[in-house]
Amino acid sequence: MNRYMERVESPAIVEIKNRIKAKEESGENVLDLTQAVVDILPKLHYDKLSEHLGDRQTHLYTPDAGKNELRSQLSLFFRKQWDYRGKPENIFITPGANNAYFSLMIMLMNTGSRMLIPLPYYFNHSMTVDMLGGENVFCDFTYDSIISNMADTDIITIVSPNNPSGKIMDSSHIESIVREAAGQGKYVIIDETYALLRYGDNYSALSIIERYKNLFVVGSFSKSVPMAGWRLGYSVMHQSFAEHFLKVMDCNVICASTVSQIALLDILSALDKNAERINQILIERRDALIEHMDIEESHIPEAACFLWLPVDNDREFADRLLDSHSIGVIAGSYFGKEGFVRISYGSTDTDELRSAGRIIEGLRN
Amino acid sequence: MNRYMERVESPAIVEIKNRIKAKEESGENVLDLTQAVVDILPKLHYDKLSEHLGDRQTHLYTPDAGKNELRSQLSLFFRKQWDYRGKPENIFITPGANNAYFSLMIMLMNTGSRMLIPLPYYFNHSMTVDMLGGENVFCDFTYDSIISNMADTDIITIVSPNNPSGKIMDSSHIESIVREAAGQGKYVIIDETYALLRYGDNYSALSIIERYKNLFVVGSFSKSVPMAGWRLGYSVMHQSFAEHFLKVMDCNVICASTVSQIALLDILSALDKNAERINQILIERRDALIEHMDIEESHIPEAACFLWLPVDNDREFADRLLDSHSIGVIAGSYFGKEGFVRISYGSTDTDELRSAGRIIEGLRN
Repeated sequence: MNRYMERVESPAIVEIKNRIKAKEESGENVLDLTQAVVDILPKLHYDKLSEHLGDRQTHLYTPDAGKNELRSQLSLFFRKQWDYRGKPENIFITPGANNAYFSLMIMLMNTGSRMLIPLPYYFNHSMTVDMLGGENVFCDFTYDSIISNMADTDIITIVSPNNPSGKIMDSSHIESIVREAAGQGKYVIIDETYALLRYGDNYSALSIIERYKNLFVVGSFSKSVPMAGWRLGYSVMHQSFAEHFLKVMDCNVICASTVSQIALLDILSALDKNAERINQILIERRDALIEHMDIEESHIPEAACFLWLPVDNDREFADRLLDSHSIGVIAGSYFGKEGFVRISYGSTDTDELRSAGRIIEGLRN
Repeated sequence: MNRYMERVESPAIVEIKNRIKAKEESGENVLDLTQAVVDILPKLHYDKLSEHLGDRQTHLYTPDAGKNELRSQLSLFFRKQWDYRGKPENIFITPGANNAYFSLMIMLMNTGSRMLIPLPYYFNHSMTVDMLGGENVFCDFTYDSIISNMADTDIITIVSPNNPSGKIMDSSHIESIVREAAGQGKYVIIDETYALLRYGDNYSALSIIERYKNLFVVGSFSKSVPMAGWRLGYSVMHQSFAEHFLKVMDCNVICASTVSQIALLDILSALDKNAERINQILIERRDALIEHMDIEESHIPEAACFLWLPVDNDREFADRLLDSHSIGVIAGSYFGKEGFVRISYGSTDTDELRSAGRIIEGLRN
């Protein structure tokens, strides 16, 4: 067996889900605030989709990189949304953002590659690095910390907007980091799974990607659309990597699901309006959750669907919250940073969040 | 970059597809017999599927290993079809058989792992081994050759029914190979992508899997259903690997597409009858293709949708066939074995195949 498998931890979510399930099966009602799920149904054009089911092409493979029409339309969407200046050929449709990241790591990493990951991390990233025989090097989620730790690493992974913290890396900082990394001959991956779920501004590293050969952008249609179950994401990269990335895709997945790609094409023109609507709802949910909380301005999430709340002894806090109050959250330790819990507010209504917030605040004091 | 990427060849199919496309764009009509596609529309329950689209769960993730109900139903189907004695928990639903194989290799391989692959090979397998820093060790597609070359390798990959040759490895030979490998502490992967497309018998290594911890079976719903565009396959393995395989799945793909899993559940009970119908059509197509050919009994395919035809100078033969007769086939060299061409008859009607067969036979003499 792969000699690195044993050191890879099982995803945190599995353990907690099992505990929640056990409680539910014993008849308890659990409020599950653990999952990175935005539970606002997409306005899919179901009628159109039913038509496509009769079409022979729906049941066959698409080109490895995705349907040409989808890549063209996405290119236009990225341009309109984020001033993307690359070509459709630089966009690769993958079955989810995790797969985009994993396939990139297959292409870029060697045994012993050193990955700089700001804390808190998205655990699938550090797991992937562990699995492929690399070394995770941790730093803070700040510009200064990333710059000063870069020299001793090979690749930098930044998740912005961040899961689990809901924080954003400043756009000028991202560009400085990519430029500095280019000078040092290092790759930068920006994971923008939550790119469309920014409440106050509108930025993507896609706006600078045609200028940096060392920059890779990963994105998703699982959160802002949300089509999580349809398994669609993307990676965008310089043309010089296209041939190699296609070899990875061909072996790993061949292509993303055809019917999913067709469904996305049908709703692409409504994506930005849909995201606006979702953000409005997410802001209301966030505000309900923190209404009775005494927290610093800097901890109020500006994006995504997570409150990253400081608590004493996070594992104990999460256990107590689940055992005594039947509310499930994830301890920060699972994201590499103690003293916080991640509270997901993407799939719970405001009334429940308001009362959960009050209970959580009570437990903090 | 991954130091092994450069040595990975681009998939053969891409180059040939591009040449066919170029001819078509110049106004020529090309008969494309290159793709491993069975083009017989699945009898999906479209009405049911439309109902599912309104259901919230359709848009969310399933458990990493797949919907519990699907794993249970598949377990019953495997038992009925192939006397499978494992549990639903041993079955992992993946986005295609390639992904099942790739994720298994992530879990099992180390840099320098030696993979025994009988020739001709399915090129995604040797590409995957190259990409992950392993060494391909080639042998013949015979029991004796596999047994006598096993000692110096770590893993054995057998594709049966075989792509590209359409040949079958005898069931008693498969069990002997797995038993011998178990004794030597080696893994065996049986890729049964075409398991349901056997014209004369009905065998799967799933019938012995509960007895061998070193055995992994990979399968697909892209050929016999056929739902290629829906991206669904599976891997089946001993319980002791489940935890590790789930870590790979979580990082690589999370789960297969939910709507695809639901669509498969709707048609699962009709799978065997559907395969019977497809096999009937494939036999007719095979017979039409070889009607005017003078070939040995041993070269007549017993499964899948490929004729593996002996020719002199296979690359030149394939080029000439495309240039002079506008018929696309793949030279055996791309599958690691010169002196043959692979002719796919899975998506062409009998009349076209009969006349193509006559032209191909003319070029052989």
